[in-house]
Amino acid sequence: MGEIPDSHPRKASLLARAKLTEAAREGLLAESAMIAHGRGEAFDYLLGERTSDSAKAAIKECAARLLAANNPVISMNGNTTVLAGKQAIRAAAIIGCPIEVNIYYRTPERIEKLITALESMKEEVAAEVDEKTKASVMAVEILGADADGKIDGLEGPRSICSRKGIESADVVLVPLEDGDRCEALVALDKQVLVVDLNPLSRTARTATVTIVDEVARALGEMEELLLQNPQPTDWDNQKTLREALDIISDSSKRI
Amino acid sequence: MGEIPDSHPRKASLLARAKLTEAAREGLLAESAMIAHGRGEAFDYLLGERTSDSAKAAIKECAARLLAANNPVISMNGNTTVLAGKQAIRAAAIIGCPIEVNIYYRTPERIEKLITALESMKEEVAAEVDEKTKASVMAVEILGADADGKIDGLEGPRSICSRKGIESADVVLVPLEDGDRCEALVALDKQVLVVDLNPLSRTARTATVTIVDEVARALGEMEELLLQNPQPTDWDNQKTLREALDIISDSSKRI
Repeated sequence: MGEIPDSHPRKASLLARAKLTEAAREGLLAESAMIAHGRGEAFDYLLGERTSDSAKAAIKECAARLLAANNPVISMNGNTTVLAGKQAIRAAAIIGCPIEVNIYYRTPERIEKLITALESMKEEVAAEVDEKTKASVMAVEILGADADGKIDGLEGPRSICSRKGIESADVVLVPLEDGDRCEALVALDKQVLVVDLNPLSRTARTATVTIVDEVARALGEMEELLLQNPQPTDWDNQKTLREALDIISDSSKRI
Repeated sequence: MGEIPDSHPRKASLLARAKLTEAAREGLLAESAMIAHGRGEAFDYLLGERTSDSAKAAIKECAARLLAANNPVISMNGNTTVLAGKQAIRAAAIIGCPIEVNIYYRTPERIEKLITALESMKEEVAAEVDEKTKASVMAVEILGADADGKIDGLEGPRSICSRKGIESADVVLVPLEDGDRCEALVALDKQVLVVDLNPLSRTARTATVTIVDEVARALGEMEELLLQNPQPTDWDNQKTLREALDIISDSSKRI
């Protein structure tokens, strides 16, 4: 892909695509990753490629619940790392929580590559901030290689997690999660916070709080909101899903 | 991907995904192909993964216009070849028209691989039919390697086509076409018939007739309708787009 002019109305979308294509070449992604991203692109298109007020409320709720948690963790897969790795690191530094690399199609090579990518993003983020923040950024632990935990209710490689991370967490932020895993985590009485552009997906409908938004925008917004120290509320997740569906429904009338 | 049980409600979708993943490994697809397929999957999901009555009417109209054309051609790219190559060959055999391999990110290697794939599908289709049909199947010319034509109004590799195919055609069926190329073909006063799952795309809105449906279902249905020898009508393409949008809009309320 050549240079994309700043004026291009869909620049962010084209840049995201270029990043993923590059990451796929480097072996960071599962074969299904590009298809999943394309599905997301279509829903984001219908949502107007912006963070809705409803999504912003969900992001704030997630920020509040992560701050109030005893053992929060942010779980990252291939697409999330490539698209929003730095945003996740900045959020984790504010929350003071670890990041766990946890992927559905688990191979040791991909886990290793994603951990390396996140460690190098930590250096980049640390170079951009003041001394005090730098210490909290460098303190963000990147888990996932340990593989010493288990998500009860799942079988095979999909059940593997980090004992210090997802296994012992009470609140898990898992952007772009698979439906089965989302259900298993909810069944373990964890609060499951997800980012999913499809408000009809099983993940979106199962999660405790669903952010219907593009992951880089959502986690970028979360950084800001975390600094406002929000408090958890009595959250109506069905309402946020209905609001996202209303936006899709309206946009499909814009011809 | 393992065996998919017949009972799986989304078997067709999962099989399409497996076919594309395999084709990507074999170098038949551009890097953007999987993302494009993902976008299609999302729209098809919202359309209920079925051919609507409105799409069926559009397919019939395309069948009629291809039969009535002086120089019809079916243009195939990577995704179309992988997903609906055999359906296109059967349709071309009934119409008595050539198929042109024509791809947006043109490389001689991919053109060659796609032509080889279609030639081998021709053999497969010929082996499944009676003697008379076999002759018409084997007579379907696969153009595209010649590259001796030009689509006026486009620059660079995107403008290359076959003189005997797209350049001299009055009616072109181009499933999954790019917006720029669709506009250029319409500007040349050709009838441009497209298959596009996004009724809001530039291609869908520019084409002479837009089939809002998954390409394998659409071309499969076209085979049947071609045999009924339909006649062209005074077609209202805006109406078919609005009907597709209504389905999307309704489906987004199904929570």
